[in-house]
Amino acid sequence: MAKINPDRLLADLDHLRSFGACGNGVMRPSLSPVDMKSRQWLVQRMLEAGLEARIDGVGNVIGRSARPGPALLIGSHSDTQPRGGWLDGAMGVIYGLEIARALAENPDTAQLAVDPVAWVDEEGTFLGCLGSRAWCGVLDPAHEAAASNADGVTLPEALAAAGLSDVPRERMPPDRYLGYLEAHIEQGPYLEEAGLEVGVVTSIVGIRGLTVRFEGEQNHAGTTPMPRRKDAGVALFDYAVKIRERFQALAGERTVWTIGSATLDPGAPSIIPGRAQMLLQFRDADEARLDRMQAAAIALAEQVSAAGPVRVSATPARAPVVPTIMDADLQRHIATAAERRVPGRWQHMPSAAGHDPMVIAHHLPCAMLFIPSINGISHDFAEDSKREDIVTGCEVLADAAESMLREAVQA
Amino acid sequence: MAKINPDRLLADLDHLRSFGACGNGVMRPSLSPVDMKSRQWLVQRMLEAGLEARIDGVGNVIGRSARPGPALLIGSHSDTQPRGGWLDGAMGVIYGLEIARALAENPDTAQLAVDPVAWVDEEGTFLGCLGSRAWCGVLDPAHEAAASNADGVTLPEALAAAGLSDVPRERMPPDRYLGYLEAHIEQGPYLEEAGLEVGVVTSIVGIRGLTVRFEGEQNHAGTTPMPRRKDAGVALFDYAVKIRERFQALAGERTVWTIGSATLDPGAPSIIPGRAQMLLQFRDADEARLDRMQAAAIALAEQVSAAGPVRVSATPARAPVVPTIMDADLQRHIATAAERRVPGRWQHMPSAAGHDPMVIAHHLPCAMLFIPSINGISHDFAEDSKREDIVTGCEVLADAAESMLREAVQA
Repeated sequence: MAKINPDRLLADLDHLRSFGACGNGVMRPSLSPVDMKSRQWLVQRMLEAGLEARIDGVGNVIGRSARPGPALLIGSHSDTQPRGGWLDGAMGVIYGLEIARALAENPDTAQLAVDPVAWVDEEGTFLGCLGSRAWCGVLDPAHEAAASNADGVTLPEALAAAGLSDVPRERMPPDRYLGYLEAHIEQGPYLEEAGLEVGVVTSIVGIRGLTVRFEGEQNHAGTTPMPRRKDAGVALFDYAVKIRERFQALAGERTVWTIGSATLDPGAPSIIPGRAQMLLQFRDADEARLDRMQAAAIALAEQVSAAGPVRVSATPARAPVVPTIMDADLQRHIATAAERRVPGRWQHMPSAAGHDPMVIAHHLPCAMLFIPSINGISHDFAEDSKREDIVTGCEVLADAAESMLREAVQA
Repeated sequence: MAKINPDRLLADLDHLRSFGACGNGVMRPSLSPVDMKSRQWLVQRMLEAGLEARIDGVGNVIGRSARPGPALLIGSHSDTQPRGGWLDGAMGVIYGLEIARALAENPDTAQLAVDPVAWVDEEGTFLGCLGSRAWCGVLDPAHEAAASNADGVTLPEALAAAGLSDVPRERMPPDRYLGYLEAHIEQGPYLEEAGLEVGVVTSIVGIRGLTVRFEGEQNHAGTTPMPRRKDAGVALFDYAVKIRERFQALAGERTVWTIGSATLDPGAPSIIPGRAQMLLQFRDADEARLDRMQAAAIALAEQVSAAGPVRVSATPARAPVVPTIMDADLQRHIATAAERRVPGRWQHMPSAAGHDPMVIAHHLPCAMLFIPSINGISHDFAEDSKREDIVTGCEVLADAAESMLREAVQA
C-alpha cells in the first residue's frame, strides 16, 4: 500500500486555499492575478518535489516526472467559481502532487511515473475546460478568440495580462500516459447519506437542454374575457406541471431535471402574455433515457399545441453533452484499492456534475474518485469535507495509481 | 330627439385621427408636440362652435357654453397609447363637441348647457388620469413632480416643453355641473358578439393586484437529487395552476384574472431557482367577489407554504382600485334614449377597462356609454368600430343629455 503524508497533503491544501480566501470560501477565478500567484506556487512545490514544471501558455501547470512512461497524469483544476468553495478542483490538484511525491520518495515505488496537473478554467470563467481542451488539441481558435468573462474581458486579453501570450502551450505527448485520474468532492449528498467514504465514478452524466416556446396572443388584461384568451403564460404553467409528471414516469433514481428560467412577454401586470419561454434541462448517465425524456418533452409540446389555443414548440437549447464513460479497467483498480482501505464503505456512482474528463476521456482512459461533501453543498462558500475523508480519498487513489502503474510496467 | 350632424361628427373624428396617424393607428402620447397641435385644433373647433375654450395648465381642453348651468360636461381623453387606436378617447371627445354644437344650433335645445372636454394623459404616459385628477383637485404634487415617461422625461419638463408651466389650471366649478358623461368604444367583445349597438355602463370594475413570492433554496441543477430540492420555480408553477382552479370556482361571467409576469431567480439553465415571483391581477365589478378572490389567493399561498418545501407569500402589489358605480339616474336617461333609438339592441354592462370617471365619480355623478369594438381589439393599431355604430352612439348620448338637462331645468 502506498504511503502518503497526510500532514503535507492537508498543509498544501490549506496553503492553496489562502490564494483568494474569503471567509470559508475562495474567489480565485482563472487567470486572475491571485490565480496566477497560486499557479507560481504550484510550480514551486512541483520543482521542490523533483519534477519539471512550468505554467504553460493557457495557464495549465503540468509537473513532469523524470521517470519514463508508462505514466499516470493525476490532478484537477485549480481555478474556482466566482464565489466558490475551497475543495472544488483544488483537492484533486493537491492529490496529484502528493501522490507524485509519495511514490517518488518510497524506494519501492520510486520507479513509477506520476505527473501532477492543475488545469485552468474548468469552471468556465472564460471557456469551460479551457486547459484540458488546449492540452488535448481540441480548442477551437474562433471559440477561444470570442471567449470573455462576465466583465467583458476577452480570453486573449486575460492571457496577455497574465503574461502568457508568447508562452508555449503543452500538448498531450503521444505515448507517455496510461491514463488520467481525477479526485473530486462529490458535490452531492449520496455518499454522506449512505455513510460511505469513497465513490468510484462510472460515468459523467449527459445533459440535454430544450427551449420551450409558447406563442399566444397579447391582449388587454381587463377587457378580454377568459374564454377568448390565448395566454402564453397559462400554457407555460400547464406545460411545466405536466412535464414533471411525464419525467417522473421516465426517471431513474438519479435522473434530474430543472426549469431554470421562465419568462412571460411583455411581462406587465395588465397585459395578457402573448409569448412565453422556458429552459428545460435534464441529466442522466443513460443516453437512452435522455432520448426518451427528450422525445416526451417534444411530444408534450406537440400535444399542448394541438389542443390549443397557444402554439408550443420544444427545440434544443444547447449542444447535447453525451454521458462520458469512465475506463472500466482503471475503475477496477480504484474499487480494489477502496475495498482494501475502507471495506464495504465505498460504491460505484455516476458524477452529476461536469469535469475535465468529459474532454480528456476522448483521448486518454480516465477515472475519477469522489469523497463525501458535507450536506452535499458545492459552488458555495459553505462547501466542505471532513479532513479524514480527504486523507482517505488520497490514500485510495495513491494505492490505485501504484497498482495501475505496476500492472502496466509488468505488461 | 336631438339631431346631431353625422358628417360633421365623422369628419372631425377623422381630422383628430390625422394628428399622429400611423397606418390605421395613432401615436399621440400626451403632451407630445403632435398632441399639443391636436389640442390647439380642438380649441379652435370649440371656439368656432361658440364656446369659450383654451388649453389649461396640464393640457386639458375644456369648452364652456355661455349658457348658465345646470350643465353637463361631456367628453373623454384625446391622448393615446404609445401605439394606440384611433377611437380610444378620441371618439368620446368629438361626441362632446358634436353634442354641444347640435344642442346649441337647435332653437328647441339652445338654452341647454353642454361643455365638451378633452382630458390629458388618461393613458398614463406620465401619470394616469392626470387631467381629470388636476380638474378634481386630487393631483398629489409629490406624485406629479416624480412622474416621468418611458424616455425619462419628467412631467414638469414635459409641461414646460409644451409651454404650460405658467398657464393656470382649471378646477371644477362648485355648482355648474349636473354630471359628467363619457362615451367610449367597449374595448371588449361583448356587444359585438351579442349583436348589440349600445352598452349602458353600470360600473367600472375594481382591480386587485398581488405579488406572490416563492422562497426556496438555490442549488446545483446537476448534483442536487430531486427529492432534496427546494425549487421556487416548481412551487410557482403549482401555484399558478391551482389558483386558476380556485378562481374559476369563485368567478362570475365577466371576472378576469391574469398572471402577467413571472420570474425565476437567478434564471440560469443549470441552477435550481432559489426565488421566484409572480404578479397576479384580478378584476370584477363586485367588491365582495374581489375580497373572496384575494382571500383565496392568500389562503393558497399559506397552504402551499405550509406543505413545503418552499415558502410562499401573497401581498398587495398595488393600491386596490375599488369598483366605480355609475350614477343610476344618469344611466336611466341613457337606457331610455337607447331603447328609443335602438330598441332591444342595447344592454347594461360593466366596463372592464379603467377610465377618467374612476376619478371624477368621487366628485360628480358620472355615466358612460359604450359602442361595439370590432373583434374586441383595443390598444392596438387594429382598433376600429363601424361608422354607423359611431353615429348611433352619439345620437343616443345626445338624446340622453337633452333629457337629463331638461329634467334638471324643470326641477
